[in-house]
Amino acid sequence: MHQPGAAVALLKGASAAAADVFRAILTRGPISRIDIARLLGLSQAAVTKAVGPLLDVGLVSDELELPRDGQPGRPANPLMVVADALLSIGIKVNADEIVGVATDLRTTVLAANRRALKTTTPQATVDAIAATVADLADALGDRADRLCAVGVSVSGDVDAHSGVVRESAIMGWTDVPLGALLAGRLDREVLVENDVRALTIGEHWFGVGVGTDLFAIVTIGRGIGSGLHVNGEVVEGAYGVAGEIGHLPLTSPDRICPCGRRGCVEAVAGTPAIVAEVSRAHGRDLSIGEIVELAHEGDPAAVQTFEHAATVIGTAIATLVNLTGPELVIIGGEAVSNFDLFEPHLRASFAEHAFGAAGRCQIVTRPHTFEDWARGASAAAIRHLAENR
Amino acid sequence: MHQPGAAVALLKGASAAAADVFRAILTRGPISRIDIARLLGLSQAAVTKAVGPLLDVGLVSDELELPRDGQPGRPANPLMVVADALLSIGIKVNADEIVGVATDLRTTVLAANRRALKTTTPQATVDAIAATVADLADALGDRADRLCAVGVSVSGDVDAHSGVVRESAIMGWTDVPLGALLAGRLDREVLVENDVRALTIGEHWFGVGVGTDLFAIVTIGRGIGSGLHVNGEVVEGAYGVAGEIGHLPLTSPDRICPCGRRGCVEAVAGTPAIVAEVSRAHGRDLSIGEIVELAHEGDPAAVQTFEHAATVIGTAIATLVNLTGPELVIIGGEAVSNFDLFEPHLRASFAEHAFGAAGRCQIVTRPHTFEDWARGASAAAIRHLAENR
Ligand SMILES: [Zn+2]
Ligand SMILES: [Zn+2]
Repeated sequence: MHQPGAAVALLKGASAAAADVFRAILTRGPISRIDIARLLGLSQAAVTKAVGPLLDVGLVSDELELPRDGQPGRPANPLMVVADALLSIGIKVNADEIVGVATDLRTTVLAANRRALKTTTPQATVDAIAATVADLADALGDRADRLCAVGVSVSGDVDAHSGVVRESAIMGWTDVPLGALLAGRLDREVLVENDVRALTIGEHWFGVGVGTDLFAIVTIGRGIGSGLHVNGEVVEGAYGVAGEIGHLPLTSPDRICPCGRRGCVEAVAGTPAIVAEVSRAHGRDLSIGEIVELAHEGDPAAVQTFEHAATVIGTAIATLVNLTGPELVIIGGEAVSNFDLFEPHLRASFAEHAFGAAGRCQIVTRPHTFEDWARGASAAAIRHLAENR
Repeated sequence: MHQPGAAVALLKGASAAAADVFRAILTRGPISRIDIARLLGLSQAAVTKAVGPLLDVGLVSDELELPRDGQPGRPANPLMVVADALLSIGIKVNADEIVGVATDLRTTVLAANRRALKTTTPQATVDAIAATVADLADALGDRADRLCAVGVSVSGDVDAHSGVVRESAIMGWTDVPLGALLAGRLDREVLVENDVRALTIGEHWFGVGVGTDLFAIVTIGRGIGSGLHVNGEVVEGAYGVAGEIGHLPLTSPDRICPCGRRGCVEAVAGTPAIVAEVSRAHGRDLSIGEIVELAHEGDPAAVQTFEHAATVIGTAIATLVNLTGPELVIIGGEAVSNFDLFEPHLRASFAEHAFGAAGRCQIVTRPHTFEDWARGASAAAIRHLAENR
């Protein structure tokens, strides 16, 4: 039943309709053939035709044990994915650490691994990713032959199509062909994606975003980013750039952003900006941990700096919401652990600037772990394989 | 061959796949069955099955005369829509005028009509729309029986699903059930849509946006709005609000917008704001025509006011582009006729704030006539009919 090579070949050669059928089973299973036909507007014959090869190579099963509720007659035989038929690796690249997970097709984590990154040069990063992938493959034992995809997510301007990291402030990279470097080293196809977009794909497939077509993730912390999901897909941008909420010009032009532009959200609300501002007020270098503590103790400089940051972030979310009208905004990123310092001013400025019914959008927080980010990279790689794009 | 009733019933009852096939023929025809199958990921058998009834009711034809280039053998028999098999009316509601067009399925204008609106009450507006529809039907003569859709577009917060105009500053309306009022009066189904979204649908189907999935229309003038087209569809917003670029909080909070919020783009860059600002500087009430003339003569107050407006609009476009990454931004709206007064500062502030590769987005202008806006409303109504949504 285990034919990883045949399964990958099947997915890569799938027609758009067959890819749609597989995706429906993957993300909505258990699901009946009738419901797939209804969902996709295909005939039942077309669904059956697409399902056959998926059953043959063991990617999909219709032998699910379901409670029968004492009903007589033939069972519905719903279809579901054989989650561990193929496995995938997701890697989140941070400035000081590579975080990797091996997952099944539903991004259930089977193994996890962290490795310190001493320098952010492309060579050191590729070495660390390759070592992480090797460790994860070891951890999988004889299931390693089912590994079919590697997804790598990096903060910054990433062209997923070419695998080039065009600009990553956190890594100090410009035009690094990470996909090509890794493909040569790993002897596998590698998908490189912007980290927040990868997280958005993961949330849509298997997280809070399931069942919601129109949602956004906004991450706060060192960098401020967002991923948008609109009309059935994550927004990639015609030139690979989208969701750059941290670089909206929403604040005073005398604030210079790490990106070099004036008045960006990150120039006020990113962690480095908060650290610089409060350190200046106190006349000494403070850590973000000390500043959070000061704010909780009521230190005016710390409190006001967080309030200002929160107001700018709330304004930025209202901007995103007024333009794209999501149902849900999920706030993640490392600063979520101190969301109490942001929440009142963030919600107030959102309410002040949200336009009409767009303001009904719910804002929730979700403390993503680094493993969640790595799962997002794995989801992006699986989507790439399963959607043939 | 003319069976308008059967054609409408067919479209309304179409499966999603059949609707996709019709839309492909409508927007991309002439197109072969093979190309449709490839485009939609359907089998040729499925395409043939969907095409049969479309041929039978006369919505689609395969008897196109094509030059044969002296080639022997069977002609390709591409499919194309019979554009005048069904007709549609598009209405653009302005504060002082109702503009209507009757179009075929490709939004070619067959008749046009304008009617002054003396007051913006819902009753007067419904009366004027009904009279415009009647005049257009008269103008169509015996083709009037092919009228199958009426689309009405209004500036503001419009819930297309319910047909309710929730808020329209220009009309002075709150929660006006325009769709229901018109359906009762016209004895026809009516689609009500936000005017800029309708224009965006029209541009995507039959205008500059053909072949571009990721584009935006930004309208400048009395109101400042936008329509976004992302991942295959116009962005509608989970609560019917999206593209509200005029109400992004990008300027000083001491500027109060007609919407009541602080710091909106419209509070600086909308025509009323420009008129108020220059009139104040000159100590007398000026018209926008006089102000344009003053600016062309180099009057400092007029020039600076346009420059400031242009800078804010350019910043707003950069904001939209950084979030959604379009390939193309089309600037329309009545102020496009004086685009020379906006262009340098608009492009400079766009370039200053556009993030990375997103800045490759092209910005072009297009002077839409009121008939173009009405065509957009007709396109929205045809899309509603043809997409079964
Ligand atoms: Zn920036
Ligand atoms: Zn406003």
